[in-house]
Amino acid sequence: MKNEMEKPYVIGIDIGGTNTIFGIVDTRGTILENGSIKTGDYTEIDGYVTALADGIQGMIQQVGGRETIKGIGIGAPMGNYYSGCIENAVNLPWKGIIPLAQLLSDKTGGIPVALTNDVNAAAMGEMAYGAARGLKDFIVIALGTGVGSGIVCGGNLVYGHDGFAGELGHVTMRRENGRMCGCGRSGCLEAYTSATGVARTAKELLMTRTDESLLRKLDPETITSKDVYEAAIQGDKLSMEIFELTGEILGEAFADFIAFSSPEAIILFGGLTKAGDLILNPIRRSMDDHVLFSYKGKIKLLVSQLNESDAAILGASALGWEAK
Amino acid sequence: MKNEMEKPYVIGIDIGGTNTIFGIVDTRGTILENGSIKTGDYTEIDGYVTALADGIQGMIQQVGGRETIKGIGIGAPMGNYYSGCIENAVNLPWKGIIPLAQLLSDKTGGIPVALTNDVNAAAMGEMAYGAARGLKDFIVIALGTGVGSGIVCGGNLVYGHDGFAGELGHVTMRRENGRMCGCGRSGCLEAYTSATGVARTAKELLMTRTDESLLRKLDPETITSKDVYEAAIQGDKLSMEIFELTGEILGEAFADFIAFSSPEAIILFGGLTKAGDLILNPIRRSMDDHVLFSYKGKIKLLVSQLNESDAAILGASALGWEAK
Repeated sequence: MKNEMEKPYVIGIDIGGTNTIFGIVDTRGTILENGSIKTGDYTEIDGYVTALADGIQGMIQQVGGRETIKGIGIGAPMGNYYSGCIENAVNLPWKGIIPLAQLLSDKTGGIPVALTNDVNAAAMGEMAYGAARGLKDFIVIALGTGVGSGIVCGGNLVYGHDGFAGELGHVTMRRENGRMCGCGRSGCLEAYTSATGVARTAKELLMTRTDESLLRKLDPETITSKDVYEAAIQGDKLSMEIFELTGEILGEAFADFIAFSSPEAIILFGGLTKAGDLILNPIRRSMDDHVLFSYKGKIKLLVSQLNESDAAILGASALGWEAK
Repeated sequence: MKNEMEKPYVIGIDIGGTNTIFGIVDTRGTILENGSIKTGDYTEIDGYVTALADGIQGMIQQVGGRETIKGIGIGAPMGNYYSGCIENAVNLPWKGIIPLAQLLSDKTGGIPVALTNDVNAAAMGEMAYGAARGLKDFIVIALGTGVGSGIVCGGNLVYGHDGFAGELGHVTMRRENGRMCGCGRSGCLEAYTSATGVARTAKELLMTRTDESLLRKLDPETITSKDVYEAAIQGDKLSMEIFELTGEILGEAFADFIAFSSPEAIILFGGLTKAGDLILNPIRRSMDDHVLFSYKGKIKLLVSQLNESDAAILGASALGWEAK
């Protein structure tokens, strides 16, 4: 957040498999302009970059022209901060290594562009505008379709030697009879504690037990974490137990993460956090049960304070301040 | 390693429960002078600091006086980099919070002193003079009586919010029927893969199995990891299996550590590394079996290149370059 006097704005771009959303953001985290394009409409990267640059140029005119823009930050699946490339992203239309930061900078007359993965961008957003303001050591855990993470140590994002640090959804939590994970291994944190993992737990309990539950009205094959949440807030015991089990495993994992980087806070983000205390209380209890004595009571569990619809743009935009 | 022209030397001090060793080191990692005192001889911290300062002053005269010394680095159990204090160290004579950096700086006429725990100091030493020269992202794992760790991300040691990051000996590797650990929990990495853990594995296998082994000539209660090593190099199958089991668990743990910080290398340090390929080969195999596909083949497994008798002084001394 330097040079506000000269260049008061940054641009944040969040690239998802379905939509790409973008906005112009000021130093206080206000989104002044925003727009979107359909990612899937562009099977060729050139067409995509042209459409994206057009959308951005339109916004830039609204705020006073290119000289007001400090930089552009992009959050994208498999985004590599070091290379500025999207590397072999499974859920995007473009295969292989896409030098997106360079392509977009070229198309926008040389505005500096920095790129990282979406959860790292979320961590930058929390540090600049959200629950991590003032914190130098924290971990953001995104509980969505998968489980992602963004790790900050000493005020710096942990990128790792290759740009791909922070795959905490793929630490192994169950070494015997672990659930198969999309990564090809078994027992990963993500297989239990993503939204999909919660639905799998629901299905497992419904098939192996006989106790009554509101969930029995639904087809076990199509139950979602939202269904489990809605049953749980109506007091459904089985659904509450599903959140207990999910929180238990998250707490076990967080105890290990704490032994690694001793963060001041772990910040939760993503769809599952809507369950509130239904999931937060079991996580807190389990963290406290499993953490090494020397950390006990020291590490906060927080929930993202960023408005969900803004968070993706804000997170990516925070990276724009340091684009070079 | 700045200001060599003005102040060419640093002092490294390693504080152990039995001995405190110290030396004067130049920018290339040569130990010019060294000495030691018995830690246990000083039940009061004041007497200890006086004796330590006396030992240091003697060395300083040999190299040209106080003006040649850039700073002092100390590696000590429970050493907190932020506060410069030793905090509640179990194996040292002084209880509570000991502001050692300040005390020693005062006694040496104001030489800047920085302090951290012993494995963090080892990581600094590897980065300055050892296997991690040129690396910005690596993890040092010390396999000794316990299992310690020093983590470097982006060229910076990970201290955590409270100065106590890097307790990787206490991540949980076995969540069911895990071995009791000295920390009061069960299933910790340290309970299996420290020198003590190796001896416990030996004892367990000897008591639960009947196959022949050179180890059966020894009292299972007093077997050490060194005994297991000596039997293994003579081709003793059971002893080789003990290293296999130890390496298997280390590789599982390293796969999780890699998902956290994506280091360029994991560097092993400490007594167990003397077993060489007997333990390195199983670790490599297990790391490769368990690591997430996107890291496969990318992360090096290295052994410390520092001479063991010098490593403690060199490690601590590396911190002296950044003492303020």
